[in-house]
Amino acid sequence: MDNFSFRSPTHFEFGGGAEAKTAELIKQFAGVAAENIKVLFVYGGGSIKSSGLYDRIKTTLAEGNINFIELGGVEANPKDTKVYEGIELARKEGLNFILAAGGGSVIDTGKAIAAGALYDGDFWDFYEGKPVEKALPVGTILTIAAAGSEGSKDAVIVKTTNLPEGVTPKKHGASGECLRPVFSVLNPELTQTLPPYQTAAGCADIMQHVMERYFSNTAKVEVTDRLCEALLTTIITEAPRVLFDPNDYDARANIMWAGMVAHNNICGVGRAQDWACHNLEHEISAKYGTAHGAGLAAIVPHWARFVCDKNPNKFVQFAVRVFGVQMHFDNLRQTAFEGIDRLANFLKSIGMPEKISQLGVTESDISIFADRLIARKGGGSGAYVRLGRDEIITIYKNAL
Amino acid sequence: MDNFSFRSPTHFEFGGGAEAKTAELIKQFAGVAAENIKVLFVYGGGSIKSSGLYDRIKTTLAEGNINFIELGGVEANPKDTKVYEGIELARKEGLNFILAAGGGSVIDTGKAIAAGALYDGDFWDFYEGKPVEKALPVGTILTIAAAGSEGSKDAVIVKTTNLPEGVTPKKHGASGECLRPVFSVLNPELTQTLPPYQTAAGCADIMQHVMERYFSNTAKVEVTDRLCEALLTTIITEAPRVLFDPNDYDARANIMWAGMVAHNNICGVGRAQDWACHNLEHEISAKYGTAHGAGLAAIVPHWARFVCDKNPNKFVQFAVRVFGVQMHFDNLRQTAFEGIDRLANFLKSIGMPEKISQLGVTESDISIFADRLIARKGGGSGAYVRLGRDEIITIYKNAL
Repeated sequence: MDNFSFRSPTHFEFGGGAEAKTAELIKQFAGVAAENIKVLFVYGGGSIKSSGLYDRIKTTLAEGNINFIELGGVEANPKDTKVYEGIELARKEGLNFILAAGGGSVIDTGKAIAAGALYDGDFWDFYEGKPVEKALPVGTILTIAAAGSEGSKDAVIVKTTNLPEGVTPKKHGASGECLRPVFSVLNPELTQTLPPYQTAAGCADIMQHVMERYFSNTAKVEVTDRLCEALLTTIITEAPRVLFDPNDYDARANIMWAGMVAHNNICGVGRAQDWACHNLEHEISAKYGTAHGAGLAAIVPHWARFVCDKNPNKFVQFAVRVFGVQMHFDNLRQTAFEGIDRLANFLKSIGMPEKISQLGVTESDISIFADRLIARKGGGSGAYVRLGRDEIITIYKNAL
Repeated sequence: MDNFSFRSPTHFEFGGGAEAKTAELIKQFAGVAAENIKVLFVYGGGSIKSSGLYDRIKTTLAEGNINFIELGGVEANPKDTKVYEGIELARKEGLNFILAAGGGSVIDTGKAIAAGALYDGDFWDFYEGKPVEKALPVGTILTIAAAGSEGSKDAVIVKTTNLPEGVTPKKHGASGECLRPVFSVLNPELTQTLPPYQTAAGCADIMQHVMERYFSNTAKVEVTDRLCEALLTTIITEAPRVLFDPNDYDARANIMWAGMVAHNNICGVGRAQDWACHNLEHEISAKYGTAHGAGLAAIVPHWARFVCDKNPNKFVQFAVRVFGVQMHFDNLRQTAFEGIDRLANFLKSIGMPEKISQLGVTESDISIFADRLIARKGGGSGAYVRLGRDEIITIYKNAL
C-alpha cells in the first residue's frame, strides 16, 4: 500500500425530505454570520421545477431568511459560459456561498464558480492543471446518483468559448480539497423520477469511478480492493431493482450512498489509479454531448479486453470476486475474459450502449480524439496499462 | 434504509514515517496562530519510549517550535484519574490542543480531557449520558489498530474513584461529533512491534465494530452490508498474515485502514445498530482489566448462537458472504450456525480466548454484571435481538 493523505469533511444529510434542512445547513457551514450569508442558487433545466424541488428549496431558504440569487439553466456536460455568468454574478452581488441543486453538471458548475469567484485570472486555468487552493463554500442537493461530485474534490467543465477555428469543445477536470462540498443533501426520492436511461448511465458512472481505482498495479491493497468490490456488487444488485421498479426507494438509497463512497476516494487511497476510460470518454461527450455514464459503458469493455491481454492479474480477481466467475485454475486468462464478458453483458442488460458508434462517433473522429487526449494528458493515459497514441486509437477502433 | 446524518472530517496522514508531519498537522488544524498553540502530549507506558516513537515526536514538535507539556502513564482500560490530572493541567497551563500518541486508551483519555477541559462540571457527566458539545481539538498518532477511536466520535473511560463501597470500576462511553480527531497519523510500522496477542485482540475488536453495525433488522441496506462484509473479509485475510509475519507492512496497513473505516461509521449509517456484545464485554474489562478485543472474542460466538436461534436471518447472509459457507437452501438454520462456528474457529485460530472464564470471570460475577449492565443501559441491551436481564445472564453463563 502506498502512503496517502485523506480528508473528506463533507456533512451528508441523507433521507426522504432531507432538503428541508437546507437553510439550517447553510447557516451551519457558511462560515459567516447568518445575516451576512448571500447564496448563489445554481440549478439546471426543467426537471427541478416540474418535480416541485425548486419551490421547496426556495421555501426553505425564505423560511430560513437566507438571501439568495438564482442561476438556472445549467446543461448536461456543463459549459464554461454558465461558469463565467456565475462568477460575474457572484462578484457583482458579493455572494459568499454556492448552493447547487442537481446532478454532477450543476454541482460541477457550482464548484467552478466557487473557485473562479476568488481567483483574479481566468477560471479555466484550473482546468489546464493549476491546483485549486481556495473557493467559496459549496453545498449541494443531489438529484442524480452518478458523478459523486457531492463528496469529491473534482469538477468537470466543457470549454466552448475562445477555441481556435475548427476545434470542438474541450472537457477538462479541475481538482482541489477546497472543492469538497461543505454539505450535501442526499434524498433518494429525488432520483425516483429519473428516466431509465439516465438511471442506468448513473450506475455505469458509479461503477467506473470504482474501477478506475480498482484496476491498479499497487499490490497488497486488500482493504480498498474489498471496499471497491463491495460497491461494484452493490450496483450490480441494485441497478436492476430500480429499473424493474423506479420507485424502489431503498434500491435508490443504496445506489445513492454507493455513488458518494465510490468517489470521495475512501476506497481509492494508497494505490495508483487508472482513469484512462474517463479520459477516453471525455472526448466523446465533449463533442457529442453524450451522457457520461453511457459513454463510459460503451468504452470500458473494449478498454478491458485490450489491457487484459497485457496485464490480466487484476481482471482474474475482478471476475471471481465481483461477477462470481468460477476460477479456472488452469486458465487464468479465460477466467479474466469471462469477467469482462459478464461486465459487458451487465451494462447491456441495463440499457447501455455497446459501441461508441451508437453515440455518434465516426472513424474520422478517432485520430482527432487521440491527439487531443495525448496533448491534454501529457503523452498518454492510464496506469494499470499505460496507453500511448497507438493504443488509444486501437481501443477507440475496437469500440466503434 | 433509515435517514441519517454523517460527517467524518478527520484528516488522515497514512504511511511509513507519517509521524514526522505531526507539528505541521498541529499547525494546520489547531485553529489558533502557531505561536499560541499549547499542546498536551498524552501517551502511555514504556513501549512508546522503547520503540523510539516518543523521541521522534518530541523532535518533530521541537523542530516545529510547538509548545507542549507531557502527560504520560495512561494505562490500558484508561482511568478517570488520569483524565482529571489532564484536565487540571490543561486548565492551569492554558493548553488548547491535545496530541494523543498510542492506542485506543491513550486517544480516549485525550478525548475525555479535551471535553472536560471546556466543561465546568465533572467530566464524568458525559459518561453518564450527557452529550459532548464542545472539546479542545484532538490530534492522534495511532500505535494499535483496534479501537477505531482515531476516526470516531466516541471515547471510553473507566471510573475508579468516588465509587460506593464494594462497587468495582465502571467502564462507560461518551460521544459527540466534536470528539472526532482533527487529524490522525496512521503509520503501520508503529504496529509491527505489538505482541501477537494484542495484534489479534485488535483484529477481534475491529471485526466486532463491524458486526455491531452489521447485525441489524433494518432491511435493504445492501451497500453498507457489502462494505461491512468487505471489512470482515479483509481482517479474516490479513490477521493470519501479520501473525505469520509480524513485520508484514502491507498486512498491517490493510488492518490499520480497516480499523478506521470500521468505526468512523461510514459502514454503519442508515440502520439500527446492536452493541450488546460491547456492553457485555465492558463489564468484564472494567473489573478484570481484560484486553477489550479478547473479551469480545470470548463473548461474541456465545451471543451469536443465542440470538441466532431467535433471529437467524442475518446470520445466514453472514455465513455465506463472509465465511463462504455453502448455502443449505433446505436448512437456513444450519447455514447460519455453520457461519458462527467458522467465526468461533477463526477467533480461536488467532489466539483469542473461547470462554470468559479464561479471563478470570467467575459464576458469582454474572448476576452483578447483568444488574450493572441493565442499570447502565436503561433496562436492556442490543437491537438485533433485545436482551433483558435473563437473556444477558444466559449469554454470560454460556460463555463461562
